[in-house]
Amino acid sequence: MSKWVYTFGDGKAEGSADMRNLLGGKGANLAEMSRIGVPVPPGFTISTEVCTFYYSNGDSYPEGLTDQVEQALAGVEATIGASFGDAVNPLLVSVRSGARASMPGMMDTVLNLGLNDVTVAGLAKRSNDERFAYDSYRRFIQMYSDVVLGVEHHLFEDILDEVKRNAGVSQDTQLSATDWRGVIERYKDLVAHELGKPFPQDVKEQIWGAIGAVFGSWMNQRAITYRRLHGIPESWGTAVTVQSMVFGNMGEDCATGVAFSRDPSTGENAFYGEYLVNAQGEDVVAGIRTPQHLTIKGKEKHGSPLPAMEEVMPGLFTDLLNVRNRLEKHYKDMQDMEFTIQQGKLWMLQTRNGKRTVSASVKIAVDMVSEGLLSKEEAVLRVEPQQLDQLLHPTLDPKAKRDVIAKGLPASPGAAAGRVVFTADDAEVWAKRGEKVILARQETSPEDIGGMHVSEGVLTTRGGMTSHAAVVARGMGTPCVAGAGEIRVDVRAREMRVRNVVIKEGDLITLDGSTGEVILGEVATVQPEMTGDFAILMGWVDEVRTMKVRANAETPLDASTARKFGAEGIGLCRTEHMFFDPQRIISMREMILARNEPGRRAALAKLLPYQRQDFVDLFTIMKGLPVTVRLLDPPLHEFLPNTDEEQQEVAEAAGIDVGMVKTAVIALHESNPMLGHRGCRLGVTYPEIYEMQARAILEAAVQVSKETGESVVPEIMIPLVMGKAELDMMKAVIDAVAKEVFAASGMTLTYNVGTMIELPRAALRAGEIAKTAEFFSFGTNDLTQTTLGMSRDDAGNFLEIYRQKGVVETDPFATLDQDGVGELIKIAAERGRATRPGIKLGICGEHGGDPASVEFCQSIGLTYVSCSPYRVPIARLAAAQAALKQRRGK
Amino acid sequence: MSKWVYTFGDGKAEGSADMRNLLGGKGANLAEMSRIGVPVPPGFTISTEVCTFYYSNGDSYPEGLTDQVEQALAGVEATIGASFGDAVNPLLVSVRSGARASMPGMMDTVLNLGLNDVTVAGLAKRSNDERFAYDSYRRFIQMYSDVVLGVEHHLFEDILDEVKRNAGVSQDTQLSATDWRGVIERYKDLVAHELGKPFPQDVKEQIWGAIGAVFGSWMNQRAITYRRLHGIPESWGTAVTVQSMVFGNMGEDCATGVAFSRDPSTGENAFYGEYLVNAQGEDVVAGIRTPQHLTIKGKEKHGSPLPAMEEVMPGLFTDLLNVRNRLEKHYKDMQDMEFTIQQGKLWMLQTRNGKRTVSASVKIAVDMVSEGLLSKEEAVLRVEPQQLDQLLHPTLDPKAKRDVIAKGLPASPGAAAGRVVFTADDAEVWAKRGEKVILARQETSPEDIGGMHVSEGVLTTRGGMTSHAAVVARGMGTPCVAGAGEIRVDVRAREMRVRNVVIKEGDLITLDGSTGEVILGEVATVQPEMTGDFAILMGWVDEVRTMKVRANAETPLDASTARKFGAEGIGLCRTEHMFFDPQRIISMREMILARNEPGRRAALAKLLPYQRQDFVDLFTIMKGLPVTVRLLDPPLHEFLPNTDEEQQEVAEAAGIDVGMVKTAVIALHESNPMLGHRGCRLGVTYPEIYEMQARAILEAAVQVSKETGESVVPEIMIPLVMGKAELDMMKAVIDAVAKEVFAASGMTLTYNVGTMIELPRAALRAGEIAKTAEFFSFGTNDLTQTTLGMSRDDAGNFLEIYRQKGVVETDPFATLDQDGVGELIKIAAERGRATRPGIKLGICGEHGGDPASVEFCQSIGLTYVSCSPYRVPIARLAAAQAALKQRRGK
Repeated sequence: MSKWVYTFGDGKAEGSADMRNLLGGKGANLAEMSRIGVPVPPGFTISTEVCTFYYSNGDSYPEGLTDQVEQALAGVEATIGASFGDAVNPLLVSVRSGARASMPGMMDTVLNLGLNDVTVAGLAKRSNDERFAYDSYRRFIQMYSDVVLGVEHHLFEDILDEVKRNAGVSQDTQLSATDWRGVIERYKDLVAHELGKPFPQDVKEQIWGAIGAVFGSWMNQRAITYRRLHGIPESWGTAVTVQSMVFGNMGEDCATGVAFSRDPSTGENAFYGEYLVNAQGEDVVAGIRTPQHLTIKGKEKHGSPLPAMEEVMPGLFTDLLNVRNRLEKHYKDMQDMEFTIQQGKLWMLQTRNGKRTVSASVKIAVDMVSEGLLSKEEAVLRVEPQQLDQLLHPTLDPKAKRDVIAKGLPASPGAAAGRVVFTADDAEVWAKRGEKVILARQETSPEDIGGMHVSEGVLTTRGGMTSHAAVVARGMGTPCVAGAGEIRVDVRAREMRVRNVVIKEGDLITLDGSTGEVILGEVATVQPEMTGDFAILMGWVDEVRTMKVRANAETPLDASTARKFGAEGIGLCRTEHMFFDPQRIISMREMILARNEPGRRAALAKLLPYQRQDFVDLFTIMKGLPVTVRLLDPPLHEFLPNTDEEQQEVAEAAGIDVGMVKTAVIALHESNPMLGHRGCRLGVTYPEIYEMQARAILEAAVQVSKETGESVVPEIMIPLVMGKAELDMMKAVIDAVAKEVFAASGMTLTYNVGTMIELPRAALRAGEIAKTAEFFSFGTNDLTQTTLGMSRDDAGNFLEIYRQKGVVETDPFATLDQDGVGELIKIAAERGRATRPGIKLGICGEHGGDPASVEFCQSIGLTYVSCSPYRVPIARLAAAQAALKQRRGK
Repeated sequence: MSKWVYTFGDGKAEGSADMRNLLGGKGANLAEMSRIGVPVPPGFTISTEVCTFYYSNGDSYPEGLTDQVEQALAGVEATIGASFGDAVNPLLVSVRSGARASMPGMMDTVLNLGLNDVTVAGLAKRSNDERFAYDSYRRFIQMYSDVVLGVEHHLFEDILDEVKRNAGVSQDTQLSATDWRGVIERYKDLVAHELGKPFPQDVKEQIWGAIGAVFGSWMNQRAITYRRLHGIPESWGTAVTVQSMVFGNMGEDCATGVAFSRDPSTGENAFYGEYLVNAQGEDVVAGIRTPQHLTIKGKEKHGSPLPAMEEVMPGLFTDLLNVRNRLEKHYKDMQDMEFTIQQGKLWMLQTRNGKRTVSASVKIAVDMVSEGLLSKEEAVLRVEPQQLDQLLHPTLDPKAKRDVIAKGLPASPGAAAGRVVFTADDAEVWAKRGEKVILARQETSPEDIGGMHVSEGVLTTRGGMTSHAAVVARGMGTPCVAGAGEIRVDVRAREMRVRNVVIKEGDLITLDGSTGEVILGEVATVQPEMTGDFAILMGWVDEVRTMKVRANAETPLDASTARKFGAEGIGLCRTEHMFFDPQRIISMREMILARNEPGRRAALAKLLPYQRQDFVDLFTIMKGLPVTVRLLDPPLHEFLPNTDEEQQEVAEAAGIDVGMVKTAVIALHESNPMLGHRGCRLGVTYPEIYEMQARAILEAAVQVSKETGESVVPEIMIPLVMGKAELDMMKAVIDAVAKEVFAASGMTLTYNVGTMIELPRAALRAGEIAKTAEFFSFGTNDLTQTTLGMSRDDAGNFLEIYRQKGVVETDPFATLDQDGVGELIKIAAERGRATRPGIKLGICGEHGGDPASVEFCQSIGLTYVSCSPYRVPIARLAAAQAALKQRRGK
């Protein structure tokens, strides 16, 4: 006969953790605990195969199920020493659903099943608490009627409200056992009236009713919707777990508590937890009574006057400590456990890997390696890469008070406090006189770079996670809260408002870039500690990692930060960021306003020395590590000012009529600048611009090579190509410059010319492009914009709605859209490699610092990922984990 | 021994037209003419295999080549009755390159080869024209020295200039035979000085020098670049054709002329051409002497006082007529021929298919079918689809004078004259009082639709072939010149300027939308004639065509025009175009400005009756043909006004504060509207909009079905989907409305729900999307914009430079980019069909009316193409040709 039922308890189990598909997550986990000798309340699980049978056979059960359930129930009775339906010592059980994948809220649990008019008296006597027993009974009736019998919940609530009103009380806890008896009678009347038959007193009928309800719930609307949204096949089915109830509130030899196998906030290897004598689980959480510590050490550390469990119940404490040790050894991770002591016996109700702070996470992983519990590889897999972010920036003192006035997007992590200013110029002025400032803008533009640099933090009221402010701030490691839409910035009045709060220029505010909180006043911050454990872990990370990690950086500060965080090169140096410096922007504008090529060349000649020095600095800092330089990318109008005053200034500086400036601004205006005259389209139109940039790069490379003796291999990158022709044309310009530079300097260097792949067409034509391109760098920001037809500056208007309505799961600008953008990257990588085996492939969009995206990059064999300097450690860890997962998958 | 040389002449030939790969285009064509008995000057072709041998064997010739060339040359001497290098009757030859694919300008031709100090005297005597002989000789020295010997051209020009200066003349023609003799001496000195050896007098040396130069030219930089740009493999090689020279200027028994086998402007089956006695070919073209007609009929028709060839040389005329008949029968097409009569003998120098007007093209194709020369299928292939455009619009009277003041892009064909106005409102006002107007704008926007409708023509100073003005004008069949960048429109001053011409409001101008010309004053136009031949041809077109042709249309006028031109349904009805009507735009704006869903619903309820009536009209006109309706696509800000006055008006109309309007305009502003909150993103955000539109469509379908008894099957199309989820959500909205409409009307209709594929991601996810979508329509305008990352509104800034520099061959918004966008369409078609075999696939971008793009659509098996009504005949013809080519290719 087929096996439908799997028992657990008493140090044995017919199932185990790896039988998740058959027993569901909950059933498998309980079996596992029992199997390794941890005391769990006994019970049994009806397998998912029964669910499948049920739906394939007109809602009927397979032969033998009834017998197997009876038998298993008898086993539970024997183990627990109580009988189901017994008047004196009744066994009570819980009935729960449990699918292969967690489906929270799919069906309510039924607790206290087995209570009826007779057994409730037995419970009252054994617990020596009538009120508890009758309260449990009325809860059972309410829950069972709702879940199993389909009587609407609110009808019971109406009765309860009325009883409380009549008794003149407002809290359930103020009702006596007698009151509850009355409630129970009215509940039973209600059920009889609604269903035309009485509430079932037969405990066997109760249990089969509950089992049927669980199976039935697999096809309710809530479950169907949930499965559709999460891609769970209907065929999986659910299991049903029946488990004996245990109570921690049956007397002074009872207790209940929660415990962590190590300190979840520091990671210290110290048993940690709280308990209450003669209490229910929810009492510990609810905070009605003050919980006591488990250990004497814990008690002393927190200065608690109440005795520790170690003192009060030394034997049971030892039992618990043994369980803790066994579970940690078994699961090889810090455990978060729930336990109940019923009349002198310890029962474990649950264990799971405990949540912890990131520093605890790192410490535990490292400690467990020295304790021999984990291998280094396993330790590497234990830390959530995204979490590392918290370690790398200053954070708000968790003890400090926060007066949160608004919440935006956590656009660039870290905390910062300062005086608020509303223009980039003001930021520079204030900063010069030694003030710490927070720059608050509706949105930032490239012109604001100077002001952003000197600010402690940046706040914008528009824009998303990949807006200009967010991207630049992350690159600088400056905390940023973006898109705080409730705030209205009034630049002219030099103030901002949120509801009825007015914040004037110079007022102190604090930003938490990790949560998106905007806080009034100055909140104390805590500096990051790169502890020894962190360094040890990152060492292991680099041992297993196969993909390189570079940084997106253009300033010496960025580059130094990147190196400090372990970057193995620069994957994206955006040369245009170098043109916004006040001295340079003049020449840049002169170039744009020039009427012809000689005019442009004259202006470019002025820019050359600056640009060359930029690269000298970068190459020197990067000491022979690869540096990928992207030639000018943004449309030229980004360099021209928009206000009348600024246009007047530019005209004066350039010695031309302001009308000419205005004409240029109008002529350069674009409907969709993202899809406009930018990238290599500028290089094709004005080759002299790329010529100057190539000269600056190559002259700098020669200079640094001569000075340091270290060989510099610049990688020159052409943005926004659609196909091979543009790249050929630009490479010819670069090659010609190289010839000249090498001839003039008497030194020849290796340099590579490659391309961004950031347009769908470029991805499709990659095979052709790779004939010329020596490397590809996937610009996933723009590739996402074009593949999805979605402007990241404008997506804020609808992306949130898309997320709410389940159209997208994650922000495609934060986590790579693998189905769409990812397929194009895969195609490009394959075609590129087919033409040029071993072609260097990297990614330099914002996704380079996103763990899920990094894993994708590993899976398709990219050479490196490149990300903001502050995300380099995250990318390193993510890449290491991806390498390990890939190795295991093979 | 291998055969390297192929002779032709004397009614025989060793080669033929199908030996193009071996003999090159020119060699094969000469062989063909000779083979069918047409008298061509004899000669021979050295095959491309010699070229291949030459480059594989260190620039050496294969064994036997010398003998074969000698032999062939002897044959030519025999045929022509002259001897190479002979002092009395010298044979002169031309030496030309000839590749498999035409490579114009790859190498200059060498003419008159065989002249030297001795033979020149023979030529002088035989031609009885010393001046001619010595001029020929100096030309030969100059040409040969430049092409073969590498002496720079300008050195010869310097000598010639000096000689003319000394002689006190300015024209070559003013120099005498004696002068030329002097020039020859100085040329020979120059060569001797430059090369250190004399100009070759040995005619054999001359010929081998020229042959070697042709083969050498295959690898010169010009040829390499040309091949790279045109994708011609190096391995093809070039052939060399050596042909005897003939002269039409050796006396009164000589002549030269050009002839068309039929009238190239009307297509009439009448021999047509001109000739000159005792003249060179260039004399006919140069217009120095007045050419005479070939036929008496031609002479009379054109009122020429000069005698016809038919009269002057009746025997030779009959020879020519016979050749004409033979060539037409052989090539089955109207021929454009060049001939020379040397001393009483007719020689044909060239024949090729003649250029002709489109009406001639149609008439000739139809006539040739009745003459039994062509099958109907062949006739269909004979007319250039693009050319048909000329037949469908009024054109400028070719005899009228044109004062062209500027040239823009030929954005919408046809000619129109009228009084110029500078705003859409003015256009409506002027039109109401009966004036014909031309609307001139910097660029148009959807708000201008009303004004465009009443205008005879539209002129813009910005924007390309697919700008708003161009697209809308083509849709309306209104002539349009776009992007006439020299013109400056000053709306406030109500005038426009181009250089020093000022055109004020009300001045008459004429537009030629087929050439892009802007003309001062009113030019007479000629109405199109849909002749009987046109109708006959289109009948054959529809017999062979397999792909359907629909039209993009939304107004009753558009729909009627589409039907008149043979559209088989509407492939794209853009519902937003229906919202710009003055009565409707108010409700539309009310909807946009509403604060919540009830507010939006109230405004939408006002729009419903209008929108429903739109569809009632369309369905009625289309009589059961399929109509694909695209739900609202553009971003909402397009419906809001930008100027203060208009915003004030809207505020007053809506009874709200103007500040609210301004706030909405700012809130809806987008950086890249093309990639913004539009398409189904509106539907997902405000489902009530699509709900109203679906209701209007379905209620109209029910009403028309009831009224006409004809079943209406609306196809409802969701724009801008990225994947299946959005489509599912929108389909649910439509299905729910359908249920209600069918219940209320007591009538159930079939309707289809499908989607635009206009984002790269949608193309990639087509397999998934097709689970829900019942049809795909490729929106190639947007798909091109996203795949290439190129805004069509902004591309004007760089696309022309890209074309000039050879980065792109054609405007990707006019002709589908098959390598990029095409691959995505192919992927989508394949994946869509894999999920839903037989899924209806169409294209509705501008490319639907472009012949090359239509051919691509046929090749990947689309169900239909949809284009502007006025392009429907073009698409029909293109589709028929594509079907025929595909059938032949199989």
